[in-house]
Amino acid sequence: MKATVITIGDEILIGQIIDTNSAWLGEQLSLLGIKVHQIVSISDTVEAIKLTIAQQMLTSDIIILTGGLGPTKDDITKKALAEHFDSDMVFDDKTYGRIKKYFDSRGIPMLEAHKEQCYMPSKAEILDNDLGTAPGMLFSIEGKMVLSMPGVPYEMKWIFQNSFLPLYKKRLPSEKFIYHRTIKTVGRGETTIAENISDILEQLPTHMSIAYLPSIGSVRLRLSSISDQDTSQEVDTYVSTIKKKLGNIVYGMDSDKLEASVLDLYRKKSMTLATAESCTGGLVAHRLTSVPGSSQVYQGSIVSYSYGLKEKLLIVSHDTLIKEGAVSENTVVEMLNGLLESTSVDVGVAISGIAGPGGGTPDKPVGTIWMAWGRKGNIKTKLLNLSKNRKLNIEYTSVAALNALRLFAIEHC
Amino acid sequence: MKATVITIGDEILIGQIIDTNSAWLGEQLSLLGIKVHQIVSISDTVEAIKLTIAQQMLTSDIIILTGGLGPTKDDITKKALAEHFDSDMVFDDKTYGRIKKYFDSRGIPMLEAHKEQCYMPSKAEILDNDLGTAPGMLFSIEGKMVLSMPGVPYEMKWIFQNSFLPLYKKRLPSEKFIYHRTIKTVGRGETTIAENISDILEQLPTHMSIAYLPSIGSVRLRLSSISDQDTSQEVDTYVSTIKKKLGNIVYGMDSDKLEASVLDLYRKKSMTLATAESCTGGLVAHRLTSVPGSSQVYQGSIVSYSYGLKEKLLIVSHDTLIKEGAVSENTVVEMLNGLLESTSVDVGVAISGIAGPGGGTPDKPVGTIWMAWGRKGNIKTKLLNLSKNRKLNIEYTSVAALNALRLFAIEHC
Repeated sequence: MKATVITIGDEILIGQIIDTNSAWLGEQLSLLGIKVHQIVSISDTVEAIKLTIAQQMLTSDIIILTGGLGPTKDDITKKALAEHFDSDMVFDDKTYGRIKKYFDSRGIPMLEAHKEQCYMPSKAEILDNDLGTAPGMLFSIEGKMVLSMPGVPYEMKWIFQNSFLPLYKKRLPSEKFIYHRTIKTVGRGETTIAENISDILEQLPTHMSIAYLPSIGSVRLRLSSISDQDTSQEVDTYVSTIKKKLGNIVYGMDSDKLEASVLDLYRKKSMTLATAESCTGGLVAHRLTSVPGSSQVYQGSIVSYSYGLKEKLLIVSHDTLIKEGAVSENTVVEMLNGLLESTSVDVGVAISGIAGPGGGTPDKPVGTIWMAWGRKGNIKTKLLNLSKNRKLNIEYTSVAALNALRLFAIEHC
Repeated sequence: MKATVITIGDEILIGQIIDTNSAWLGEQLSLLGIKVHQIVSISDTVEAIKLTIAQQMLTSDIIILTGGLGPTKDDITKKALAEHFDSDMVFDDKTYGRIKKYFDSRGIPMLEAHKEQCYMPSKAEILDNDLGTAPGMLFSIEGKMVLSMPGVPYEMKWIFQNSFLPLYKKRLPSEKFIYHRTIKTVGRGETTIAENISDILEQLPTHMSIAYLPSIGSVRLRLSSISDQDTSQEVDTYVSTIKKKLGNIVYGMDSDKLEASVLDLYRKKSMTLATAESCTGGLVAHRLTSVPGSSQVYQGSIVSYSYGLKEKLLIVSHDTLIKEGAVSENTVVEMLNGLLESTSVDVGVAISGIAGPGGGTPDKPVGTIWMAWGRKGNIKTKLLNLSKNRKLNIEYTSVAALNALRLFAIEHC
């Protein structure tokens, strides 16, 4: 079973938005054992859509389109599909009722443009959309499925999971065994990891492969197997062997997140956390609080971006700031002590650095970042020498801070 | 001049990473007046790469590939290109020297896998990469250019801007006039905006088009023109007319960011800002501090995720928290007053809500968010009733908070 994901919109081609829909759909289709062999982004013209559907119908069993369905003038996917499949347009009462109810509940009057949306291709099954006005459409032609959904990510996801999946599962059972596991590591580079496990990888059978997926401060290792048989146990055995070899640079598997693994470690020990951030400006806090249920462990952050707030809220001495600067070992140690004092948490991390592009000096260039972490009586510090790139520095430092908290929980709590 | 961007890697197709390279390249090519007519993501196999290059060579003048160049075993793009263009592999001394220097400066020994990287197709021009080990490659064949770069975004960007662009500009002058302007709005939906400016849009000449690009809490309007003549002035006139009609929902143009526009407004008034965040968990702080130079205006945030920190750091009364709850109008007003008191900034915003998925009650369901903002003696409050989706609630609230600060600066400062 092969699939193509087509995302529609000039805004993708000219780089004004990043296409996140295709990654999400790629993952969902993988989980169904369907191989996505291409993702294609095309222009929002009827011609481009028709041509691409015709091409992809030659090789794919399932084609999923997102984008170009909506009440405004750039709504053209529906027109292209109706033309390609030679389908009449009919007024769909159910869609009308659903959209009307959606607007009534929000006290918004229904506009002429919204009524236009209720004309649908007669050859399509109309798929409910509870989060927006444009419904999905499913064409089942010549044993193939063509699914069209609006481009707004949360609407697309809702339609896929609630309207499409139940239909799909009824109609098409899977056939091939595709199995992926991803080992998540932090704190070492791709090449070092590859050398470390090269003896294990030499023994990999031919139906299995490995890929290295580096991102800022971390590397994911994906083991994949495609086979006529269920090879999940075999893959899991390799995963265990690799994890053992890599040791505590491994923080989790598959969709595990670094921030969640940090919170889990402290939750198990019934300990609380807080952060004091300067150059990372709340990113560590944002990452920790993006995890549902984080409030059990994580108490909060003092983002002391200015000298004044470092003194007022974190009790950093004026003397230290003047003599050694806001980016210094003593400042982060005082920030951490102030944080532990004012929040009464068990463990914390304090960060101060020069993210750039401005603010660098000859002896403290952009990319100079100090971190302190730990608990009362056991404080660690580290100096990071990073890049000239502000965004990269902020992101890398947030990963380093989370990893410091993670290793502290394992080694010192 | 037509271009195709090809991103390579099973990790893209199965959704383990989001392809951000193609958006960035799409924008760069647009700025050069080159029309990207397709973005294609394919599997990291020699066959898929060769087939896709052959297909795209039929219609595109410029083909840009990213991914699959690197020291680990999934490095296959170079092999596919050498095979497709029937090119020998030769040891490239310059690449060897560059990689050796890169490692020496970091005190890391050069591994066998890194030496393998120095064999390059003899038909390619080798493009320097100052930020990593894998260089870029440029094939100039039959009047077309095929550029291959590693998939790590910052390396790819560096090679494109520093090694490729100077070569490109020397060889191929542009011919068509492509002009885009984007009006950025916040606080109104796509359909409402479309109705508001429908009379203006009816007069658009045929070489101009408009697209609505909605994202959480905001909508961008992109006006595009493709013509044999320079129509930039004509587009700019339409932009002015639309901006005037839309009023103060417009916060900027093109690559302007909402957070930067907030900081600019307060910078011009020499006023300072701080934030008190609960459910947004530092995201407002992170967004504001992601802007270079934000420290002139933005002093910091108190992320009081727990009841305890709301009382300790923001002086919210225990009574209010117990009687009315952490998510209540009085709590956010007290948070704001505490923030203004403890940080001495001019203007602030305080946020407390139930982001979900847990924590909802019958009278305060998930998605209930209170905000207070303003200065001493002039405090505004607002209740948001949002969705069940944690990520969406956090993102939307951060936009609403930034917009509240923006409008407060315009109307009350």
